[in-house]
Amino acid sequence: MITAQIVTIGDEILIGQIIDTNSTFIAKELENIGVTVSEIYSIRDNQKAIIETLDSALKNHHIVIVTGGLGPTKDDITKFSLAQLFNSELVRDESTFTHVRDMMQAKGIDFNELNQSQALVPKCCTVIKNESGTAPAMMFEREGNILFSMPGVPFEMQNIVETKVIPEIKSRFQLGDNTHKTIVTYGLPESILSKRIEQWEQNLPEGFKLAYLPNAKGVRLRISAYNTPKTEALEKIAFAFEELREELREHFLGYEPVSLQSSLAELLIKFKLTVSLAESCTGGALASKFTAMAGSSAYFLGSVVAYSNSMKTSSLGVPAEIIAAKGAVSTEVAESMAVGARELSGADFGISVTGIAGPTGATNGKPVGTVCFGISGVDFVHSEQVLFSNSREYNIEKSCSHALNILRNFIYNKPD
Amino acid sequence: MITAQIVTIGDEILIGQIIDTNSTFIAKELENIGVTVSEIYSIRDNQKAIIETLDSALKNHHIVIVTGGLGPTKDDITKFSLAQLFNSELVRDESTFTHVRDMMQAKGIDFNELNQSQALVPKCCTVIKNESGTAPAMMFEREGNILFSMPGVPFEMQNIVETKVIPEIKSRFQLGDNTHKTIVTYGLPESILSKRIEQWEQNLPEGFKLAYLPNAKGVRLRISAYNTPKTEALEKIAFAFEELREELREHFLGYEPVSLQSSLAELLIKFKLTVSLAESCTGGALASKFTAMAGSSAYFLGSVVAYSNSMKTSSLGVPAEIIAAKGAVSTEVAESMAVGARELSGADFGISVTGIAGPTGATNGKPVGTVCFGISGVDFVHSEQVLFSNSREYNIEKSCSHALNILRNFIYNKPD
Repeated sequence: MITAQIVTIGDEILIGQIIDTNSTFIAKELENIGVTVSEIYSIRDNQKAIIETLDSALKNHHIVIVTGGLGPTKDDITKFSLAQLFNSELVRDESTFTHVRDMMQAKGIDFNELNQSQALVPKCCTVIKNESGTAPAMMFEREGNILFSMPGVPFEMQNIVETKVIPEIKSRFQLGDNTHKTIVTYGLPESILSKRIEQWEQNLPEGFKLAYLPNAKGVRLRISAYNTPKTEALEKIAFAFEELREELREHFLGYEPVSLQSSLAELLIKFKLTVSLAESCTGGALASKFTAMAGSSAYFLGSVVAYSNSMKTSSLGVPAEIIAAKGAVSTEVAESMAVGARELSGADFGISVTGIAGPTGATNGKPVGTVCFGISGVDFVHSEQVLFSNSREYNIEKSCSHALNILRNFIYNKPD
Repeated sequence: MITAQIVTIGDEILIGQIIDTNSTFIAKELENIGVTVSEIYSIRDNQKAIIETLDSALKNHHIVIVTGGLGPTKDDITKFSLAQLFNSELVRDESTFTHVRDMMQAKGIDFNELNQSQALVPKCCTVIKNESGTAPAMMFEREGNILFSMPGVPFEMQNIVETKVIPEIKSRFQLGDNTHKTIVTYGLPESILSKRIEQWEQNLPEGFKLAYLPNAKGVRLRISAYNTPKTEALEKIAFAFEELREELREHFLGYEPVSLQSSLAELLIKFKLTVSLAESCTGGALASKFTAMAGSSAYFLGSVVAYSNSMKTSSLGVPAEIIAAKGAVSTEVAESMAVGARELSGADFGISVTGIAGPTGATNGKPVGTVCFGISGVDFVHSEQVLFSNSREYNIEKSCSHALNILRNFIYNKPD
């Protein structure tokens, strides 16, 4: 088994100022080619901590991947720490020097001494070009194990991992077969789901491991197989999950990276249907779930984010009297919004959301978290009222999931 | 100095399936009360790794915070590992048993043996009630150092940290003074910013440390002071940053958690101005930047997400001939959309975005990443065309920042 350790460097991680997404990306890439990531360590911009951690990582793992601390400013000390760890002086790398100079010229930025210092690297390393940035990546070797140091800027690092680091690792090591497959379910709490599939879980092939991953977008189920030939593992996992698909019906959204929005998109494309939205409390977040997907213009026509009551009337045609009588957060207004969205765009379905996301806005009988949903089609309009939580962020996210699920279930269960 | 180590447990982190946001939250909370987080380790659901890591963490740090692996299903083994580490048998905690039973009843979920097993805890621990979930948190002590184990579900963990863990730590340890303050800048690349403030940086008080944190939303600058009394540190940092505010003018957005959208919101509120949007390629993402902020209805009236050309015409009044002649992504259409958004809502400003987010949609002379922006007010309309990148996600994010900045700069620089 080829193992790796990821080390992310930066005080900003340890004081909770930024979320470390780099290690997630790297872990996924390594796992994909059969490298087992045993540990992810985040440490401070501290020379002693950097040297000790990397020294120990190189002793225990075939591969060590380091990000962060390579910027041109004073707080970046990874390069100096590496030079000391490998007992190597800093020298100017001419190809990096030229690359950085050209980049600065193209952007019209002064090629000052800070930018020039990006070309200094420990003499013993192999320089890896950073096509999209100024700090080069570096590779070091010690007793057959290798260490990559990369800049922490996510898109620069990602590019280097995909085009340079992964091919290098594949060429050097005999890699095993780790297989993971994950499905996404929606609408059943973890404990209920677990009971319902208990028998199925017991019948999983020997050595296959099931994990539950619940969040606001549903419960994901992952099967992992280690050191089983990939084709065989994939076949067995697929067989098991397809049994589950029949059992869970509309609760089974599909294989990751499926989501409520992508599985709905698939249904809309399959049946050549279009949708438009009328959003109040989700405030554009629901539309952005659709439009984040490439190709969404095939089924998504648009959304009216009618945050003010006057916009509900002017652009969606919701009668001001209904708003006055029932309140903006009411099933009546939700229905009128859904109809308006559909008529304005000519879509097959209009979906609406109006609610009290919080923290303020609660009225008598309508606490924060009250959300009304509407759905309209060629010959029907339907609405429902739900109570979520007291967190604005959660209410917006959950309202999006709920709205997507309403339309998805409607299409899923409709008679042909 | 009181130090802490955070340990997050779960194969899903090590295979890159989920981003570890828990450690970020915990690190920030600890830093806030003067605890120095030295390391964040993420490790696998592996009994040996869990026991060894926690044993070593407890030897080296006053405080160890552990999340994950406390769910009711088979893959969760943290509790069993803790029982072994502390040489303690699992016993039923009656208050947890009752709490879980009542929660299940309220939700109408069967109180099955999986849910019941949540009440089993190592005999030697102090149980900490989890108000929002079924897995209790636990506190362990060894030679004056303490270890907290909490469920990995973010909102459950957050609630426990805020109400139980932080007060407990404050009552047990004499804590130092770490002070961090961060400002956000927009519109200057890191190397230019760094040269421009070089003199200022050299004049920072002895022992104060500056860090650069660049991303798509700007470059953040953080000053950190360790072991300086908090009041004194805050005063000196504020003095330094206020000098910078004068130097950087519109590039200085303010103190974190300021963002382009919040600093724009502040200006809109100050001058009693309102805005509405017409979005194409940002697809609701720009609206959601506004509506994610509580109280945004005071200045944000709404958005028309006109993804289809027909919706651009039907709801924003963009003449079909202009779309046909100039293309949906053109400064002419951007201007017409901005005017339409303003007229539909009666807002002071209409802002529009229409572009090619990618991966498809490029036309002759308009590559992926081409985005047009419009801004309209009572007596003017203005537009501009910009080229970003070939990443859909980045183009959407960057278009949002750019649009927010156009309006912000306009209001910032307008004569009174």
